[in-house]
Amino acid sequence: MGKTAIRTVGEVSLDKPATEHTNIHNRWHPDIPFAGSIKDGETVKIECLDWTGGQIGNNDSADDIRNVDLTRVHCLTGPFEVEGAQPGDILLVEIMDVQPFQDQPWGFTGVFHKENGGGFLDEIYPSAAKAIWDFEGIFATSRHIPHVKFAGIIHPGILGCAPSAEVLETWNKREAELISANKLERDVALPPELKGVHAGAADAALKEKVGREGARTIPGRPEHGGNCDIKNLSRGSKVYLPVHVPGAKFSVGDLHFSQGDGEISFCGAIEMAGVITINFKVIKNGVADLGLKSPIYLPGPVEPQFGPGRHIYFEGFSVDEHGKQHYMDVAVAYRQTTLRCIEYLRRFGYNDYQIYLLLSSAPIQGHVAGIVDIPNACTTLGLPVDIFDFDIMPSGPAKALDMGICAFETGVTKGEVTAGGKNSERSFGGGLTYKASVVEKVKEAVSG
Amino acid sequence: MGKTAIRTVGEVSLDKPATEHTNIHNRWHPDIPFAGSIKDGETVKIECLDWTGGQIGNNDSADDIRNVDLTRVHCLTGPFEVEGAQPGDILLVEIMDVQPFQDQPWGFTGVFHKENGGGFLDEIYPSAAKAIWDFEGIFATSRHIPHVKFAGIIHPGILGCAPSAEVLETWNKREAELISANKLERDVALPPELKGVHAGAADAALKEKVGREGARTIPGRPEHGGNCDIKNLSRGSKVYLPVHVPGAKFSVGDLHFSQGDGEISFCGAIEMAGVITINFKVIKNGVADLGLKSPIYLPGPVEPQFGPGRHIYFEGFSVDEHGKQHYMDVAVAYRQTTLRCIEYLRRFGYNDYQIYLLLSSAPIQGHVAGIVDIPNACTTLGLPVDIFDFDIMPSGPAKALDMGICAFETGVTKGEVTAGGKNSERSFGGGLTYKASVVEKVKEAVSG
Amino acid sequence: MGKTAIRTVGEVSLDKPATEHTNIHNRWHPDIPFAGSIKDGETVKIECLDWTGGQIGNNDSADDIRNVDLTRVHCLTGPFEVEGAQPGDILLVEIMDVQPFQDQPWGFTGVFHKENGGGFLDEIYPSAAKAIWDFEGIFATSRHIPHVKFAGIIHPGILGCAPSAEVLETWNKREAELISANKLERDVALPPELKGVHAGAADAALKEKVGREGARTIPGRPEHGGNCDIKNLSRGSKVYLPVHVPGAKFSVGDLHFSQGDGEISFCGAIEMAGVITINFKVIKNGVADLGLKSPIYLPGPVEPQFGPGRHIYFEGFSVDEHGKQHYMDVAVAYRQTTLRCIEYLRRFGYNDYQIYLLLSSAPIQGHVAGIVDIPNACTTLGLPVDIFDFDIMPSGPAKALDMGICAFETGVTKGEVTAGGKNSERSFGGGLTYKASVVEKVKEAVSG
Amino acid sequence: MGKTAIRTVGEVSLDKPATEHTNIHNRWHPDIPFAGSIKDGETVKIECLDWTGGQIGNNDSADDIRNVDLTRVHCLTGPFEVEGAQPGDILLVEIMDVQPFQDQPWGFTGVFHKENGGGFLDEIYPSAAKAIWDFEGIFATSRHIPHVKFAGIIHPGILGCAPSAEVLETWNKREAELISANKLERDVALPPELKGVHAGAADAALKEKVGREGARTIPGRPEHGGNCDIKNLSRGSKVYLPVHVPGAKFSVGDLHFSQGDGEISFCGAIEMAGVITINFKVIKNGVADLGLKSPIYLPGPVEPQFGPGRHIYFEGFSVDEHGKQHYMDVAVAYRQTTLRCIEYLRRFGYNDYQIYLLLSSAPIQGHVAGIVDIPNACTTLGLPVDIFDFDIMPSGPAKALDMGICAFETGVTKGEVTAGGKNSERSFGGGLTYKASVVEKVKEAVSG
Repeated sequence: MGKTAIRTVGEVSLDKPATEHTNIHNRWHPDIPFAGSIKDGETVKIECLDWTGGQIGNNDSADDIRNVDLTRVHCLTGPFEVEGAQPGDILLVEIMDVQPFQDQPWGFTGVFHKENGGGFLDEIYPSAAKAIWDFEGIFATSRHIPHVKFAGIIHPGILGCAPSAEVLETWNKREAELISANKLERDVALPPELKGVHAGAADAALKEKVGREGARTIPGRPEHGGNCDIKNLSRGSKVYLPVHVPGAKFSVGDLHFSQGDGEISFCGAIEMAGVITINFKVIKNGVADLGLKSPIYLPGPVEPQFGPGRHIYFEGFSVDEHGKQHYMDVAVAYRQTTLRCIEYLRRFGYNDYQIYLLLSSAPIQGHVAGIVDIPNACTTLGLPVDIFDFDIMPSGPAKALDMGICAFETGVTKGEVTAGGKNSERSFGGGLTYKASVVEKVKEAVSG
Repeated sequence: MGKTAIRTVGEVSLDKPATEHTNIHNRWHPDIPFAGSIKDGETVKIECLDWTGGQIGNNDSADDIRNVDLTRVHCLTGPFEVEGAQPGDILLVEIMDVQPFQDQPWGFTGVFHKENGGGFLDEIYPSAAKAIWDFEGIFATSRHIPHVKFAGIIHPGILGCAPSAEVLETWNKREAELISANKLERDVALPPELKGVHAGAADAALKEKVGREGARTIPGRPEHGGNCDIKNLSRGSKVYLPVHVPGAKFSVGDLHFSQGDGEISFCGAIEMAGVITINFKVIKNGVADLGLKSPIYLPGPVEPQFGPGRHIYFEGFSVDEHGKQHYMDVAVAYRQTTLRCIEYLRRFGYNDYQIYLLLSSAPIQGHVAGIVDIPNACTTLGLPVDIFDFDIMPSGPAKALDMGICAFETGVTKGEVTAGGKNSERSFGGGLTYKASVVEKVKEAVSG
Repeated sequence: MGKTAIRTVGEVSLDKPATEHTNIHNRWHPDIPFAGSIKDGETVKIECLDWTGGQIGNNDSADDIRNVDLTRVHCLTGPFEVEGAQPGDILLVEIMDVQPFQDQPWGFTGVFHKENGGGFLDEIYPSAAKAIWDFEGIFATSRHIPHVKFAGIIHPGILGCAPSAEVLETWNKREAELISANKLERDVALPPELKGVHAGAADAALKEKVGREGARTIPGRPEHGGNCDIKNLSRGSKVYLPVHVPGAKFSVGDLHFSQGDGEISFCGAIEMAGVITINFKVIKNGVADLGLKSPIYLPGPVEPQFGPGRHIYFEGFSVDEHGKQHYMDVAVAYRQTTLRCIEYLRRFGYNDYQIYLLLSSAPIQGHVAGIVDIPNACTTLGLPVDIFDFDIMPSGPAKALDMGICAFETGVTKGEVTAGGKNSERSFGGGLTYKASVVEKVKEAVSG
Repeated sequence: MGKTAIRTVGEVSLDKPATEHTNIHNRWHPDIPFAGSIKDGETVKIECLDWTGGQIGNNDSADDIRNVDLTRVHCLTGPFEVEGAQPGDILLVEIMDVQPFQDQPWGFTGVFHKENGGGFLDEIYPSAAKAIWDFEGIFATSRHIPHVKFAGIIHPGILGCAPSAEVLETWNKREAELISANKLERDVALPPELKGVHAGAADAALKEKVGREGARTIPGRPEHGGNCDIKNLSRGSKVYLPVHVPGAKFSVGDLHFSQGDGEISFCGAIEMAGVITINFKVIKNGVADLGLKSPIYLPGPVEPQFGPGRHIYFEGFSVDEHGKQHYMDVAVAYRQTTLRCIEYLRRFGYNDYQIYLLLSSAPIQGHVAGIVDIPNACTTLGLPVDIFDFDIMPSGPAKALDMGICAFETGVTKGEVTAGGKNSERSFGGGLTYKASVVEKVKEAVSG
C-alpha cells in the first residue's frame, strides 16, 4: 500500500563512456530510437551524464578543458516517448527536483581556449581555465575561487522534444546560409558533424544518418527550446514545449548546479552529472490554443533570495523572567522574545526604552511558532538587520556606540538609562540568571 | 478631458482641535451622522488626524505622553456613506496609498506610563518615553534612536464599518462581563465613557447617547475589525469588511508610518497625521457568500524587503573597450558590463579568470535595461553580494585577500595572473583610460 | 524645534513652456550655469517637467506623438551644485521618493512614428500611437489598455553629473565616427543640434555654444550614466555617479511611473511630470577607490512583487466561539483565526478534519498582529492561495468539489464529516451566530 | 583528489525498531553516551527516524494515530560530540539540506485523539485523523486532502545541545511546580517517565536514570531550544545554540517536510524520516559575547514563495521574423521575444499597438539568458500575470474581450487594428509560418 520510490527511466553509469549508453544522444534528429516510455501524468527520475560525458576531472589542471572534444557534447538522456503526445500538442514539463549524484557531489566551470570553444570574452581571456565546485546540500563552494558560497538555482541547461524532419530541414538550411555568409575569423554556427556522434540505440546506418543530418545541440532554437541555458528554469518551473513528432521524443541533459545570466564563459555554468525528477503532462492541441511558436515557462516557487534572510530571529518560550513556568501562554512567550531582543540590542549602546520604542515601530516579524508542545508556547521575533546603519549580525562582542537618549518624562534621570549605566548590566532570566526583582531594578535604573 | 485630482471627502485641519471637526468621531456607534458620501467604485482621499488628535508634540520631552488624555482617542475620520451598501454586503476597501501630510513630515512612538495607558512590557518599563521620527520620502529616521533607518510599511491602524445596534449591544455585554470578573490590578477592558467623546456632527443629545453607549475604539473586534493594527495592511491591500448598517458608515484613522508585529508599546507604531487614498466597492450579499465572520485581507504588492536589494548593479553601454561607438549592440553593452564587474572584483585579489568563471556560474542577473536610446544600448548586471564571505559593498579602497588561483592549462605561468601582478593594473577603457591592446596585455600577463 | 517640510530646490511650472524656465536644460554641457546649490548630506525635492516639456496631452489622439519635436527633449532640472564635490569624487544619490504632481495624476506612453523617433519594433509598427495612464496612489490604469492595473516601480529615467570638456569631446568624437560610417536607412546617433536647445540660465552666446557642442540626452553614456532607463532604479536605490566638474552639476528628469526592461517603444515608459526627493552625499576620491568607470547602483527595498500577496489573511480576536470575552489571550485569538479559516475552506467541500490537518502542515503564516489593545489580542493567519489547484480567492459563493476524506480512526462514520453533511452547516460564532455546544455538534457529526 | 561523498555520522535503519538503535534517544539528559564525533568545521549527514519511531503507517486508517504510544517519542539521533565545544560556547549549526529517504518518499500529519495527545483544537475536533503525503521532489501532495500541492519548507522540528545537570534540574523543578498547581482537566506538562525511554548506548542502570530524570522532548525550552517547531528554520538557516556540556552533545530529529506556524494539530507537520546535512562550527565564548539566553537563527536563502512565479516567461532566439539566422544578435533575439509576447496577448483581444505600449511601460523582466551558444543568443521576457484583471495563464484557447483601442494618429482606421480584424490573423514567423512581408501587412492593417 502507498507510494514507493519514484520510477527511474534513464539510468546512466559514470563508470562507462557515453558511447556505451544506448539512452544517450548528442544530436537532434527525429529518427533516434526511443530510450523508454513515460505515461501522460507520470513523474519519473531521469539520470544525466555531465554535458561533456565525463571528459573533465576533479583536479587542478585545465588541460582537460584545453583539449576537450566538443564534437562529443552534449550528452542528452533520451529520447523518451510520452504516451499520447502528437504533433501540435504541448508537452507540459514540470521540474520537480534536480540533484547531483549523492556519491559525486561536485561540478566544474570552464573557460575554453579561444581556439577550442572560446566564449563571450575570449578575445580578452584566451587561455583555458577551470574551477571545481564542491556541493554541500544546497550550497556550492570552490577551492579555485575562495570566499564564495551560494545556493544553486539548480536546473537543466537543455530540454526539448525532437524536431520533425521538416523542422530539422529548416534549421539546417538557415544555419548553412549563415555559415556560408560568414566573414568573421570564428565559427558562427556548427554544421552537422559525423565525428563524435552519440545516437542512443541507433544501428550503424542510422547513426551515420543522424551524424550527417542531425542538428548540433549547441544553440537553443525557437521551434523547440533546446539549449536555452535559462538560469532560473529551476525546481518547480513549468515549461510548455511544442511537440513535433509522435510520442514527443523528449530529451534532457546539461544539468547545471548554478548559472549566471548569459552563461558567460560558454562552459560557464556549474556543470554536473545528476538526476532530474520531472512530471509530464500532454496538453492536446496546445500549440494552436496558446499560439505557441517558442517554449514559454513559469518560474518555480523556490528561487533563492541570495543572501541569508536579512532578519535575526529570536526565540521565546512561556517561562517568564522570574523563571516561572506558564502553561502555553503565548503572550508570556512573546514578551520573553521581545526581552531577548532588547538584551541583544542593548549591547550596542541603546538604552532599553529606545529599543522598546524601536521594536514597537520598526517592521519586526512576530510569529506564533509552536502552540501545541506543552507546556511551552514558542514564539519568534524577526529583527530586520538592514534598518541599522551599523552591523548587528551575531559575531563576537558588541561595540557600544553613543546612542544619545530617547525623550523621557520629567523626573527620569537620563544618565541612568544610557549605555554603560546600570541598565546595561540588567538581565532578564530564562530561569538561570535572574537574581532580583526586575521591576525594582528598572525603577532604580530609570529614576536614578 | 482626462483625469483631474482625486476627490477628497474628509478634510481635517491640524490647526483646529478635534472637537471642532464635524467629521471626527472616537466611539463606535450606529447613530453618528454621515460625514460625507462615496460612490460604489469610487476612489477618494480621506485626511486623518493622528490618533491622539494632536496631543503629542515634536519635542524632546515625554511629558505629553505621560499626561495624554486617553478618553479623547482615537480620532477617526467618518463615518462615510458608501452608496448602495446594505447589511449583509461586504465593503471591499482597497488601499491605494497612504502618505503623511507634506508639511508635517514627522510622527511619534510612545511608551505610556504604567498608570496611564501602559503597554506590553509596562511592569518592566513603567516610565513614559517618546521617540520622534522624521520622514524623508519612504524612509523614517529618529534623533531619539540613532543609526536606524527604514522604509515604512505605511498603513491605517483602524478601519471598519459601524456596528448595528445589535452588534453594539453584544460588544457592551461581553466586555462588561469581563470587567466585572476582573481580579487583576489593571484595566482589562474599557467601558463606554462620557468624557472625551467626539461624535462628529451629532447634536448634544446624540453626543451624550454616543458617549453612554458607544464602544471604545481601543480593541479590534471580530465583527468589524476596527483597531487591528496589522503591520502589513498597507498600500495595495484589499480588506473585506462586513457591513452592518445601511450605507456602511465607514471610518478610518490611526495612520501608522510603520509598526512591528504586536505594536508592542501600545502607542507603538509611528503615529502620524496624513492622507489615505481608498477605493471602495460593494460586494452584494458578500457576508453569506464568503461565510465571513471577521474581516479578511489580501496583502498588497509593495511590502518592503528590508534592506536594500542585496545586489550591486553594474551598467554597461555599447561603447567597446577600445573606445569605439557601436550602434545599439546589446552584446557589446553586456560585454562591457561584465568587464566593469571584473574590474570591480579584481580589487579584492581575484585574478580575472577566477572572476570570469564566477560570473558564468553564480546567479548573476543580466538585464536588457534600455534598447531604444540611440546609439547606446544599456545593459545591467546584478552581482549578489551575499555569495561572498567578505564585504564587497562599495565603500572605499578594497583590501586584497589571498585568493589562490583557478586551474589553468599547462604553460600558463600562474604567478602572472594573481592579484598584485600585472593583471591588477589592467583597465578596460570606457573610452578614456584605454592605452594598449588588451588582448596583448592579457596574453603577456597569463603566459609570463 | 523639529523638522519642517523638505526644501525644494528646482521648482517648475506646468503652466509655463520649458523655454521660460531657467532651471531646465536639455543638452549635456559643462558650462550650463548652476540652477541651485545643495549641501553635502542634504535631502531635497526636485520638480521635473515630463521629458517632452509638456508637448503631449491627456486626450485620445496620437497626433501630438506623431508631431512631437524631439530636438526639445529631454527637459532636465538642474544642473545643481553639490557643495564640496570635485572631479574624482563620487556623488552618492539616494532616491528617497518619486511622486507625480498631486494635481496632475496621469502620464503617457507613446509609439513614435517610424519617421519621427521610431522605436524597437518600428519596422513592424510604423504608426504613432499613445496610451494615457491614470494614477491612483501607487497604481496605474489606462482607458486605452483596459483590464490592466499595476503598481509602478517609479523612477527617474535620467540622472547624472555634467561631463567635463574632455569627456564631452570624447563623446562627440566617437559618436561622429559612428554617424559618418552609417549605411543604414535610419539615424544611428544624433549630433549636437542648435534647434530646440534649453540651456537654463545661459545667456544667448552660451546657449548657442551649448547647442553647438552639447551632447544630446537621448543615449546613456558609460562615463556618467545619463539616460539609463533602468526600470528598478526606484525608491530607496543608491546610485554611485562619477563627478567630472567642480560642484558636480547634477541634473535629473524624464520621470517614469513605470517601465519595462528595454523601454521598448522608445517613448515607452509611463512618462510623467512630478517630484523626486533625493539625498546627496559626496564620497571623496571615490572614483579611484571603487575603480569606477560607469555608474553602479544598489536597488532599493520596495520593489513591487507584482500581483497582490498570494495569501488570504484571516483575522481573529480573543472572543471565543461561545461569545465569551477573554483578556488579551493570544491563544484564544489564534484559535479563532484558525476557525475562521476552517469555515472559509469548508465551503469548497473539505471536511473540517482535512482542513485542520492542512493548516497544521501547509506553510501558513501565523502572526501576532496586535497585543496591546485591551481586551482583544488580534492574530492573523495567512493562507497561501497557490497551494490549491483550484481558485480559493474571495469571490462569490464557493463551489464544493468532491474532496474525498482523510483517514479516521475506527468508529467514525465517514459520511457524516464530508461536505454536504451536517458538518458544513456548523458555524463557530464570533458572538453572533453561535447557538449550541460546538463540541457536541462535532461529536454528533463525526460519530454519526 | 577532490571531494568524495559527505560523511554520514548517524545511520538508522527503518527496518529496525528504535529500541535497537544505539544512536537514538528520546529524553534530554547530560549522561546519554556520545553516538559519534564531529570535527569543528565539518559537514556531515545525520539520518533520522520519523518522530514516532515508525509507529505510523502509509494507509487509510487513523487507528495508529489513535493508539500511538507517546512515551516513545521523539526519536532523536545523537548525541554527537562536537570537538572542542565547551560550556559557554555557541554551536553554530548551518542546515545545508534536509531530504526524505529516497526509498520512502512519504510522510504523515495526524490529529491526535483528545484523550491521547490532543491538540490546539481538540475540544472541537476530538477524533483521531490522519493524512498521508507523497513527495515528488520538492512538492508534497496527499490523497487525503485532494487539490493541494506545495513545496515544503523542509526543516528539523527539534535540534539542540544537551542540558547540563543544573539546567536539567531547573527544568524539572519549574515544570513540576506547574503540574502540581494544575487545575485543568488536561495535562499541562509531562514529568519524567520511565516507560518508553530510548537512551542510545546507555546501559540498563543509566537508561533507568535517564528515564527517571530526563526531560521530555515535547516542549521547546529557552535554555537550549529543543522542540521549537519553527516552520522556516530550513535549508540555509544558521542556528546559534548555547553549549551546556563538554562536547556539546548535539541531537536532532523530528524532521518535517513542511509545517504551518503553530504546528496546529500537534502531530501537525508533515512528519517524515530522512537525512539532514549540517555544518558545525564552534564559536568560543559565544554565549557571553552575544548575550545569548535562548537560541537565535538566521533564516536561509531558499524559502519558497508559495505559488509559482507570477510571470509568464517567453523565449526568443536570434532567428528573425523572416526566418533568417543571425549570429548571436541579442537585439534580434529580444525583438523576437517581444513578438512572442505580442502574439500571446493578442489572443485576448488587444490590438498589437496596445500590447507594444504595454510592454514598454509595464514592469516586464528582460533577461539575457544565453549569450554563448552559437549561433543563437537566447533572451527571455517575463510578463507579470497579475497586472491583468482577467486570467492570462496558459490554459486552452483564449477568450477575446472588448479591449477598445489606444490613441492613434489621424488617418489610421481604427477598426482595422482591433481584435478580430486582420490584425489578429498575423503571425510573426520563427522560420515556419511566415508567409509575406510583415511590414506590408501591418501597414495594410493599420491604414485600412
